[in-house]
Amino acid sequence: MRFTSEKRLDDGVLEREFALGDIPGILWTPGSASASAPAPLILVGHPGGLHRMYPRLVERARHSAAEGFAAATIELPGSGDRPRSAAAEQARADLRRALAAGEPVDDEIVDRLVLPLVEKAVPEWRAALDAVLSLPEIGGPVGYSGGVIAIGVRLAVVEPRISAALLFAGSFVPRTMFEEARQVTIPLHVLLQWDDEGNDRQMALDLFDALGSKEKTLHANMGGHTGVPQFEGDNGSRFFARHLK
Amino acid sequence: MRFTSEKRLDDGVLEREFALGDIPGILWTPGSASASAPAPLILVGHPGGLHRMYPRLVERARHSAAEGFAAATIELPGSGDRPRSAAAEQARADLRRALAAGEPVDDEIVDRLVLPLVEKAVPEWRAALDAVLSLPEIGGPVGYSGGVIAIGVRLAVVEPRISAALLFAGSFVPRTMFEEARQVTIPLHVLLQWDDEGNDRQMALDLFDALGSKEKTLHANMGGHTGVPQFEGDNGSRFFARHLK
Repeated sequence: MRFTSEKRLDDGVLEREFALGDIPGILWTPGSASASAPAPLILVGHPGGLHRMYPRLVERARHSAAEGFAAATIELPGSGDRPRSAAAEQARADLRRALAAGEPVDDEIVDRLVLPLVEKAVPEWRAALDAVLSLPEIGGPVGYSGGVIAIGVRLAVVEPRISAALLFAGSFVPRTMFEEARQVTIPLHVLLQWDDEGNDRQMALDLFDALGSKEKTLHANMGGHTGVPQFEGDNGSRFFARHLK
Repeated sequence: MRFTSEKRLDDGVLEREFALGDIPGILWTPGSASASAPAPLILVGHPGGLHRMYPRLVERARHSAAEGFAAATIELPGSGDRPRSAAAEQARADLRRALAAGEPVDDEIVDRLVLPLVEKAVPEWRAALDAVLSLPEIGGPVGYSGGVIAIGVRLAVVEPRISAALLFAGSFVPRTMFEEARQVTIPLHVLLQWDDEGNDRQMALDLFDALGSKEKTLHANMGGHTGVPQFEGDNGSRFFARHLK
């Protein structure tokens, strides 16, 4: 892990861009974090494209920092400045075509789009976790926050250092991953935008039902894919404060 | 409205039992409420049986009072010390039999149980609202909180003094009331216990979908009918604080 830039935001948060091999990432640490009082960590998930997503990512990181959490994110495979995958681009085009035509989305398209992404991304997020947790100012426990929900589900199953997850049910999940969802046991807070135009509501509800955790909460709101209300951001902070402190 | 008893709870809340004609009720006012600073009001809904429900009702009222809200409730028709209705008792027995047998509940049973209850209870709650709002220490705006959800839906449609409602999706709703649900426009916060043994989850989700309000939120949790987590109580308080202050 190699830091490539560093700046102090106006609220005292330290923002550092880094490279993990050829994967770009960003780490935010609250002004209060130090080697003597290491901060718990939230992995900030997103649909890919760090530059495009930056305004929303930094807002979430500031929110987390205000609660004493560090936050880290990395670019997804095939997004942002990382090399494209022809197969993923084709699957994405097929998905868009089906959605634009108002057709049901074939499981086969979802599998082609999401399964290779999960397979590739999850080891990268775990490597990022190794690197970030080796810093003296970052401690544990660790939470995962956001989409891609299939990545969050897989991480919740395979990565024992993740203690709680806030999952955004805003993307398609391969049917084969529902069995995996039953293996999740950590506390979960699931956000669903009820009238999300690019999401399958019934699939999101089925996934929530499948998740194995005894403590799981679903919060559904109006307002489309990006319209999560401010008060739900506060609820997310309280969720992590309950489980990571 | 005739007060029949009065006591001061240890947190300063004034609890007064009253009779509205032959309908018993309870009014709680925060220690801070006065004619010069009248408190906003929350109507505390419940499934019937004031004595049986008292521990939970007083807890909700204390929670509301801590936020500066007065709270009021009345007995439902056919419950507690009020005269039974033979037809309602028969419908309730039929519902219990269907649930115990694991059978789907006929719409006809729900209609027989819930429609007469809504028809009778809603005018009573509106009369209670008239009486309570005539007190100098109680002002507006007014929120409705709780079940019976069909009563909450009808009140939200017909009673313009109700500005926001927290609805507990824990009881059956007649199919004919789904059209009514589309007419609701006030902000709504709906609680659903995901594995509520005496409730129909899909019906609750369909009802949430049908509700006409632009601002509506669904919070679903594990834990059975009475297992609403403490943090959802706090979320309910924040919901009313956003809309009634």
